[in-house]
Amino acid sequence: MDPRIREHAETVVDHSTSVEAGDNVVISAPSAAEDLAVALHEVVGDRGATPVHLANDGRAQRAYLRAVDDENLETPTHVEALYEESDVLIRVRAEANASEQSDVSPETQAAHSRARQPVQEVALSKRWCLTQFPSQANAQLAEMSTEGYENFVWDAINKDWAAQREHQSRMVDVLDPASEVRIKSGDTTDVTMSVDGMKTLNDYAEKNLPGGEVFTAPVVDSVEGEVLFDMPLYHQGREITDAHLVFEDGEVVEHAAADNEGLLTEVLNTDPGASRLGELGIGMNRDIDQFTYNMLFDEKMGDTVHMAVGRAYDECVGENREANESAVHVDMIVDMAEESFIEVDGKTVQRNGTFRFEDGFEA
Amino acid sequence: MDPRIREHAETVVDHSTSVEAGDNVVISAPSAAEDLAVALHEVVGDRGATPVHLANDGRAQRAYLRAVDDENLETPTHVEALYEESDVLIRVRAEANASEQSDVSPETQAAHSRARQPVQEVALSKRWCLTQFPSQANAQLAEMSTEGYENFVWDAINKDWAAQREHQSRMVDVLDPASEVRIKSGDTTDVTMSVDGMKTLNDYAEKNLPGGEVFTAPVVDSVEGEVLFDMPLYHQGREITDAHLVFEDGEVVEHAAADNEGLLTEVLNTDPGASRLGELGIGMNRDIDQFTYNMLFDEKMGDTVHMAVGRAYDECVGENREANESAVHVDMIVDMAEESFIEVDGKTVQRNGTFRFEDGFEA
Repeated sequence: MDPRIREHAETVVDHSTSVEAGDNVVISAPSAAEDLAVALHEVVGDRGATPVHLANDGRAQRAYLRAVDDENLETPTHVEALYEESDVLIRVRAEANASEQSDVSPETQAAHSRARQPVQEVALSKRWCLTQFPSQANAQLAEMSTEGYENFVWDAINKDWAAQREHQSRMVDVLDPASEVRIKSGDTTDVTMSVDGMKTLNDYAEKNLPGGEVFTAPVVDSVEGEVLFDMPLYHQGREITDAHLVFEDGEVVEHAAADNEGLLTEVLNTDPGASRLGELGIGMNRDIDQFTYNMLFDEKMGDTVHMAVGRAYDECVGENREANESAVHVDMIVDMAEESFIEVDGKTVQRNGTFRFEDGFEA
Repeated sequence: MDPRIREHAETVVDHSTSVEAGDNVVISAPSAAEDLAVALHEVVGDRGATPVHLANDGRAQRAYLRAVDDENLETPTHVEALYEESDVLIRVRAEANASEQSDVSPETQAAHSRARQPVQEVALSKRWCLTQFPSQANAQLAEMSTEGYENFVWDAINKDWAAQREHQSRMVDVLDPASEVRIKSGDTTDVTMSVDGMKTLNDYAEKNLPGGEVFTAPVVDSVEGEVLFDMPLYHQGREITDAHLVFEDGEVVEHAAADNEGLLTEVLNTDPGASRLGELGIGMNRDIDQFTYNMLFDEKMGDTVHMAVGRAYDECVGENREANESAVHVDMIVDMAEESFIEVDGKTVQRNGTFRFEDGFEA
């Protein structure tokens, strides 16, 4: 087995989720990630913990969702019970066909997300990690050879996370105490929001592997302006391009997209929280240097910011602040490489992708 | 997809486990059974039930068992919670490599079975079905081509179970009210046991698919004599041949095997119940006409009887009778085609594989 797979498994088990003897662990990994599933079982066994292996296969999931009536989409209370009794949830993404869910209706996908929300609540209350195995289908989606994509993925994952944490802490120090953030890019994006009283977190590859961003939650009603998400979004097997959102009092009051606007509409209509922002994130992982149609990587790219409609992470929400609640959390990305800046409390902290604390910053 | 796979899935969901809208269903199926897993998700969705997909992959299981210290083998209480909240458990067997567990020590396998016993208790209290997908590795084990093995498996599974039930009921009528059973084959097997007060069940493919046997539980202390299990037993990736057991007062007091005697010893030493019989079964499925190193099929062959050391099925145990308890249940088969008979309360009910109620029976 490629030694990078064992290293990947050790990073998940030791760095990201701190698995210990006696822990109940859920390893959710489809067959396209077989080698990593094997390595994770080995490392979890080494640590004296007890795994169970969920398959989470795309074809089976699609078959179920195509066959079931939406009215029969119920909360899987057996899975909820499994998660309740678990200490650590590890979820490996790896597609055998990245378009597998493309002919499941957006309505059914949204109804399924709503039905699973109580399970998701339990999952988020545990130690968890979401990671990626470099399957051939994911390489194809990234328009890369399998070997090239393997190099890309493991370079981004098997790295010095202590150094990355240190680098990112400088942006946390700027954003955490701040009140107002303005994001401007070209003449298509100009949005302001308050992060007053919210907490900015440093993602150094605990819950996401790879990590590489700092993120917070906007004050729910504070978002004003418009955003053109000019980096493509791959959602439920379909690509939404040039999503354009207009915010008033925190709510999306207009939306459009060049492709798959209907899917975007369905996302925004999932529930009331789905048309408000739950996250503002700033990509800081310079090892992720190309777009691969995979949000787990794309949102961590340097020179980008992302915003998610839907659910806020509880850890970002300060006391006496309202957390945006929703069954969905859909990230969308803005390219900040050119004609762009981030302003925090009136002071420019990034211009054209370069941070104030990096070489080459132009005030 | 081969239409026999959809038919197989419908047999599992409708005939074997009676899945209904609102049921929580566990589909445990390794990647070598991918097509059946997809079909099961489709049919379960059609019926309005809610599935979760366990992977149950051999390589991952082996990696865990090789890595973990036996002292850290704990009951997977998260899986127990999953099963508790489930209505139906469907387990599909399909090997990618039928020898995958061959280098896991028998001690670890036995300790793992003991740790999982509480989970197994919960599983047996639900509607459950164990079935087989015709993987290439299972075809290889049967020394058959993949297509030939597919024909064999689906002929045995996709059949008229109502007619099979009717055929088998004639043997139930003989065995259920009986007291003493004697099994004689050549000069190597001559064993008697009481089934007085026990119940004989008709296996027409509910819990096992294929089905095709009638079975009961011996009175625990009543077994006397010796048995040579002359059909090979494939256990934990290794073949135990010519297992020979001598019983006194129901207990195995001597044992030997031509190959892998150490593995047999380990099975018998798992716990006190592992050296006593938990089942007597009589194969009656004439569509299973060859031995394929797969107990799910082999034990249903016409012209065979099987006995299991270890756990008895509760449904077989009459009121005021003791159920043999154990973490294991290991079936072993005796060929009854020649120089053999089954006697029930002194009356011959089968000679050389032919039942009293079949053509060609010689009293």
